[in-house]
Amino acid sequence: MTLGRGRPILAFDVGGTDIKSALFDADGRAVEVERTPTPLAGADTPAALARRLAEIGSDLSARYPEVRPQAAGVVVPGIVDPERGIGIYASNLGWRDAPIRELAGSALGLPVHFDHDVRAAAWAEHLLGGARAFDDVVVMVIGTGIAGSLIVDGKLHPAGGYAGEIGHSPVADGPMCPCGARGCLETVASAGAIARRYAELAGVVPDGAREVLAHAAGGDPVAWQVLDGAIDALVLALAQLTAVLAPEAIVIGGGLSRAGDALFEPLRTRLDERLSFHRRPLLLPAELGEDAGLLGAALIARERPDAAA
Amino acid sequence: MTLGRGRPILAFDVGGTDIKSALFDADGRAVEVERTPTPLAGADTPAALARRLAEIGSDLSARYPEVRPQAAGVVVPGIVDPERGIGIYASNLGWRDAPIRELAGSALGLPVHFDHDVRAAAWAEHLLGGARAFDDVVVMVIGTGIAGSLIVDGKLHPAGGYAGEIGHSPVADGPMCPCGARGCLETVASAGAIARRYAELAGVVPDGAREVLAHAAGGDPVAWQVLDGAIDALVLALAQLTAVLAPEAIVIGGGLSRAGDALFEPLRTRLDERLSFHRRPLLLPAELGEDAGLLGAALIARERPDAAA
Repeated sequence: MTLGRGRPILAFDVGGTDIKSALFDADGRAVEVERTPTPLAGADTPAALARRLAEIGSDLSARYPEVRPQAAGVVVPGIVDPERGIGIYASNLGWRDAPIRELAGSALGLPVHFDHDVRAAAWAEHLLGGARAFDDVVVMVIGTGIAGSLIVDGKLHPAGGYAGEIGHSPVADGPMCPCGARGCLETVASAGAIARRYAELAGVVPDGAREVLAHAAGGDPVAWQVLDGAIDALVLALAQLTAVLAPEAIVIGGGLSRAGDALFEPLRTRLDERLSFHRRPLLLPAELGEDAGLLGAALIARERPDAAA
Repeated sequence: MTLGRGRPILAFDVGGTDIKSALFDADGRAVEVERTPTPLAGADTPAALARRLAEIGSDLSARYPEVRPQAAGVVVPGIVDPERGIGIYASNLGWRDAPIRELAGSALGLPVHFDHDVRAAAWAEHLLGGARAFDDVVVMVIGTGIAGSLIVDGKLHPAGGYAGEIGHSPVADGPMCPCGARGCLETVASAGAIARRYAELAGVVPDGAREVLAHAAGGDPVAWQVLDGAIDALVLALAQLTAVLAPEAIVIGGGLSRAGDALFEPLRTRLDERLSFHRRPLLLPAELGEDAGLLGAALIARERPDAAA
């Protein structure tokens, strides 16, 4: 995957466990992609993260002196305000209102473009992947949880960092979600919820949601029951998105999306049944896989104007 | 209510029963507002409507020769594609894929700006009413049904005419909606649904939803049960909007909104309880009342560039 020609960029996709880093050259090729543990240091995590990013950047510059990055893209999970450059909240990184853009910019000595990991992934899918043909798109990532991002009229719509929280949209009377709300979509329809629910009902811990899908395909009634409930909840959420936002396409990525037709076929059929006059969105698999966030970080850093020094 | 200075405009808000018409002068004042029956003529309704608009326009021009409208704004209910100028569908006007903009433009001899009645009303609330301070707003109109419109980043977001159908977003397992889908918000939470449900349970037909609210306030347990269910469904829909779109404000108009605090207080309290980390939207009453659609039609016609002849 190449970004096309543009300025060289350092890109970082910061997760709760690892930082994925890449140096993109002027041809848009990643000359190196690497993983480094995320430094978790309690209240000091934002500063420790900034130092780690600077170490990675120095190391890459030493090894590839011919590629001189002109800006960096940094994306993180949680609630992220890209305009103010603030990580408002991230449960697995433990910060609140952390000025990540400023810290990373000082440490790296580069203009930093800061955003949310799933918004960046959605932007990459919009420019390079499954959502290329559309200007009104919802991107959902179904894994341990369910994250989402909105592209409206060809632009990301962060709404101060709070838009796209499809996983924390209520669709049921229960169960309680760790976020504190009740009946969030991700408590019944994430890959994590599917595996957890199967373990509760079957008394056997599956190797992830895909094992539950395999059991369901093989005729296991408990697996089918769990999967059926998850798909119904996803369809309800997709129907609500369709009624309110009417996106042209909904792109679904994350671990569960690799189930392919076993997921997409029942989603399409049941969504169609649930709707009436509504315009059906195309349901498409994400194309860029795990590196979508990293690619998005690079794309964002390439195209957004640097702040005045 | 004045629009402020701008070009003189003929504005029409076409409903299933009446056409509201107004002639706005260069000061933005309506020199005349009148109601005329909507001509319902089966397959000929679009053409009959265009002729009626031309008659109203001629009459107003004859009576106010000093006000020379330079464009017309025409808004209609249903599914409306403003970009193509097409009324895609309107159940109470009986048309499908009707080229209303072209028909009205030919009949009136003016450039016509065509849109959806509730989108126009939302635009008026955004420029002149309850949504003035915000760029990310959802406007809901709760009456016989429930209609809605989205303002995203300071612009109306029609999505080909299909966005904002909050009344036809599924929130429950039932009942069936006349639209053909199941559990649409408006089947349980519109003013029409509240009155209907009370009549079913109490065996007495109320004088609209406001009588049910009055009974509930007076301690009638059946009225309270009906209202409680409607408010729960509204809160669920508002929570979903908040999770996904994160609007700064949700403006609620229509007959039910005139209940004031009897509606807004429980909505605010229960919405807050239903959410966790989400950014709370302000819940605001619409300010412009019944003329919002007419004002919006005039505003749209004033500000959008006329198509090349």
